[in-house]
Amino acid sequence: MSFTMGNETFIVTSKLFMENRLRLVEMLKSKVQPGSVVLLKGGIEQNRYNTDAVDLPFRQESYFFWTFGVHESNCFGAIDIDSGKSFLFPPRLHPDFAIWHGNINNEEWYQKKYEVDEVHFNDQNIIIETLTNLHAKHILLGEHLYFSLPFDTAILYPIMAELRIFKTDYELDVMRYVCKVASEAHKAVMKAIKPGMYEYQLESLFRHYCYYYGGCRHLAYTCIASSGCNSAILHYGHENAPNTKKIIDGDLCLFDMGPEYNCYASDITTTFPCNGKFTEKQKLIYNAVLAANIEVFQAAKPGLRWSQMHILAERIILSHLKDAGILCGDLDEMIEARIGAIFMPHGLGHFMGLDVHDCGGYLGDAEPRSTLPGLKALRTTRTLRERMVITIEPGCYFIDTLLDAALNDSVQSKFIIKEKLNEFRGFGGVRIEDDIVIWLHGNERMSNVPRTVDEIEQFMYEKEMKN
Amino acid sequence: MSFTMGNETFIVTSKLFMENRLRLVEMLKSKVQPGSVVLLKGGIEQNRYNTDAVDLPFRQESYFFWTFGVHESNCFGAIDIDSGKSFLFPPRLHPDFAIWHGNINNEEWYQKKYEVDEVHFNDQNIIIETLTNLHAKHILLGEHLYFSLPFDTAILYPIMAELRIFKTDYELDVMRYVCKVASEAHKAVMKAIKPGMYEYQLESLFRHYCYYYGGCRHLAYTCIASSGCNSAILHYGHENAPNTKKIIDGDLCLFDMGPEYNCYASDITTTFPCNGKFTEKQKLIYNAVLAANIEVFQAAKPGLRWSQMHILAERIILSHLKDAGILCGDLDEMIEARIGAIFMPHGLGHFMGLDVHDCGGYLGDAEPRSTLPGLKALRTTRTLRERMVITIEPGCYFIDTLLDAALNDSVQSKFIIKEKLNEFRGFGGVRIEDDIVIWLHGNERMSNVPRTVDEIEQFMYEKEMKN
Repeated sequence: MSFTMGNETFIVTSKLFMENRLRLVEMLKSKVQPGSVVLLKGGIEQNRYNTDAVDLPFRQESYFFWTFGVHESNCFGAIDIDSGKSFLFPPRLHPDFAIWHGNINNEEWYQKKYEVDEVHFNDQNIIIETLTNLHAKHILLGEHLYFSLPFDTAILYPIMAELRIFKTDYELDVMRYVCKVASEAHKAVMKAIKPGMYEYQLESLFRHYCYYYGGCRHLAYTCIASSGCNSAILHYGHENAPNTKKIIDGDLCLFDMGPEYNCYASDITTTFPCNGKFTEKQKLIYNAVLAANIEVFQAAKPGLRWSQMHILAERIILSHLKDAGILCGDLDEMIEARIGAIFMPHGLGHFMGLDVHDCGGYLGDAEPRSTLPGLKALRTTRTLRERMVITIEPGCYFIDTLLDAALNDSVQSKFIIKEKLNEFRGFGGVRIEDDIVIWLHGNERMSNVPRTVDEIEQFMYEKEMKN
Repeated sequence: MSFTMGNETFIVTSKLFMENRLRLVEMLKSKVQPGSVVLLKGGIEQNRYNTDAVDLPFRQESYFFWTFGVHESNCFGAIDIDSGKSFLFPPRLHPDFAIWHGNINNEEWYQKKYEVDEVHFNDQNIIIETLTNLHAKHILLGEHLYFSLPFDTAILYPIMAELRIFKTDYELDVMRYVCKVASEAHKAVMKAIKPGMYEYQLESLFRHYCYYYGGCRHLAYTCIASSGCNSAILHYGHENAPNTKKIIDGDLCLFDMGPEYNCYASDITTTFPCNGKFTEKQKLIYNAVLAANIEVFQAAKPGLRWSQMHILAERIILSHLKDAGILCGDLDEMIEARIGAIFMPHGLGHFMGLDVHDCGGYLGDAEPRSTLPGLKALRTTRTLRERMVITIEPGCYFIDTLLDAALNDSVQSKFIIKEKLNEFRGFGGVRIEDDIVIWLHGNERMSNVPRTVDEIEQFMYEKEMKN
C-alpha cells in the first residue's frame, strides 16, 4: 500500500519503510547478540496547555516513522532482529472513536497498509507476550519508556541515526518531490510579492501553495519571511518576531521556507528584491553569496569534509567583499582571524531528511565541534559520502552587534575598511540555500528556483505564473 | 500601546488587559487576605520531539495572556492585590539572541507595550526580591511551579476562569473581528469549492484567507473539512483522519473551522452541498438543524439554563424527523428515551474566548455533569448570563454505530421507522454553528454566513466574491 494526498501529489510506497527495516536488521545483526528485539514508541497527540479542545497538529516521531511509516498516533512497533519479522501495535480504540474521530480500522487494515508482518492491537500485555514468544533476550529501546523486562537504550538511536543519514532511492524520490513543491511555492511568492504587502502574507501564500497544490499539511520548520533589515536576523519568523513587517519598496527579501511531505523535509532560501530589481549594492552581496553556493555545490564530493566546504564558502564571500572594498588584506589571514564568521555566523548547511536538521551530524568520522566563531555553529563536520542529503546555504549579513565587536577587536579591525562597511549598515542579509544529494560523479540539486540576478529579474518581470 | 497585524486587521489596545487585571484585583480583594500577590507563568517554546530545529508554533498560555496580553514566550507576571500594581518579568536574553532571533528590547519597551507598572528582566532572585519588597504574605500561583516561598494554587484559576467567562467590551470587539474573518473565510470556501477537489484544499484555502487577509496566524482548533459520509465524524480532520477525501458531486460538506486573532477564538460550522444545490433529503435535514439553531438563538437569555437549550434543540430536530417519517411517537417520550442523542451525540455548544472551548463551564451555578447520552457531552450546564460568549451548534448525523444500537434497544427502537431511517444511512450529517453573545434584550450573532437553503444556493451560484 502507499501514501498519497491525491491529485498530482506523490505516491509513497510502503516499500520505503520495508527497506529501512531491512537495513536496520542487517546493521544490527552485526552489532548485537542473537535474541535482540527492537521496540519503538510512536508519537502521542498533545493538547495546548490545559485545554481539551486544541489538538496540536500531530506529527509522527521521526525514528518511529523512518522504521514503520505509520501516520497514526500512539502506536508501538517491534522488529525481531534474528528473523527480521516486524510487529505493529496500534492502540485498541474505544468504540466511541467511530462517533468522534472516524473509522476504526481492524488489524488487517494496518497490516495491509504498512506491510508489517504482524499487527496486534495494544491490549494489556500483548507486547510482553510477543517478546516472550520471540524468546527476546535483549530489548533495544529507542528511548526510555517504562518496561518490565530488562532493556538497553544506548545502542539503537546512534545506529538508526547513522542509517538515516544515507538516503535510499525511495527516500530520495520523496525528497525530490517535496523540494519541487517548495521550489514552486517559492516561485509563486516571487510572482506575488509587491511593496506594501506584509511579510506574513507571503508566508501565508507559501503555506497555501504547499498544501493546496502539494498536499503538504505540515511545514518542516517555521517560515522565515524577512524583508529589509530583518533579513539579517537568522531565525526570524518565530513567535517573538513573527513576520509582521510591512515590505517597503527597495527592500531585499530573504525567505527561508520549506514544507514536508510524508514527514520528509525541504529547506530552501530565496533572496530577491521585493520590487523585482536589484540595486548595485544588493547585486554585489548577492553575487558573493551565489558564487559561494555554486562553488560549494561543484566542489562538494565524497571524501571531503563539510568543515572544509564551510571554509571554502567563507573564502569566496570574503574575496568578493575584498573586491568590493569592504575588506582588505590576505584571505588566509582573514580566515585565520575568523573574519568570515562576522558575515556568516551560521554553519554552511546541515543534513536533511525526516527532520529538517537531520540526525547524525556529529556521529561517525565527525571531528569534535569547533569552538571557533562560525565553525562552532556547524551542524556536521563529517566527511561527505554518497547519498547524504545536505543543504548548501551560504549567507552574508550585516549584523550590527557582530560588526561593532569586530571593529573593536584589534586583530579583526585591521581587515575592515570601516567607512565602506558602514555603507552596508542596515542592509540586512543574503542567504541562498539549496538542498542537494551528494553523488560520486556530480551532486544533484533537488531545489530549483531562479538563482542568478538575471534569472530572478526576468522571472519577476514576467506577469504570468507558468506552472 | 496595541497589537495589530497591519492593513485592515484589528487594533487591540492594551487597555483590554489592564481592565482584566483590574477585574481580577477587585474580585480577589473580596476573597483573599491582605498581602496577597498573584504570580503567573507564561508559556515556553517547545521543539518537536528531540529535534533542535522545529519550534512548534508558540502560542501564549491563555490565563497568562488574559492577564497581561503578552505574546513573548518565557515570561512571568505578578500583581499585588493590595495596590493593584502589576509586574512583568521577561527573560534576560543572551546577546546572541540579536544575531539569531531579533531585536533585544529593553525593559522600557515592554513597559510601554504592555502598560504594566514595572518591568524587570527575570534575573536571579528578582521575582523573590520583588515579592519581598511587596511584603507578600500569600502568593497565589496559577499552577504549581517551583518556588521557594509558601504559596497557594487552589484559589486563583477558578476565580480567573469565572472572570474569563464574562467578556468585556474590549474583548467582544476582538471576538467580533475574528468572527468576521472566519465568516468571510467560510464564504471564500463556499465560492471556491467544486466537486473533484480534495477536502484539504478547502482547509488550505480557509487557513490562507484567515492569515493573508485577517492576520490570523493560528487556528483556534484543527480544521474539520468533511464531505459526504465524513460529515458524520464529529471531530474529523485530526491527523488520523486528516481531510484527505476527494469531494464527489452530490456530497454535502460540513466545514467546522475558525482562526484566532490575538489569541481570541472563533468557531463556525457551515454545511452546504459541494455543487451548490441541495437535494430534497439534504434540505430536510438541513432545515431541521437550522430551525434548532434559530430557535435556540431566539430563546437563549439570561436566567435560562444551557441544558434546557440543549433539550430545546433536540425537540426541534426530533419534530422535523418525525414530520419526515423517520421517527414516530410522542416528543416528550422521545426526549425521555434520549432519542435526540442518537442524532446529536454532542453538546449544543460551549463557551468561547481565549480557548475555543473556554474555561468555567462547570463552575458557578452549573449542575453536575449528566450521565445521560447527549447531555453528558455538554461542556456547560450553567445558567446563561449577559456577556457570556457561547456557540450554538445543533447537529443531526446518521452514525451507523448509534443507529444500530438504537434499533437494537427495545425502548428506543419503537420510536424509529426503520425503513425510512435506512434511506439516510451514509447521508453524513449537518451542523450549523454560530458564535453568539448573550444579552438581556436579544442576543448578538457574531458569525455571519449564508444560512438558509435559498441564501446558500444563491450565494454559491454567484460567481464573484464580493468582499
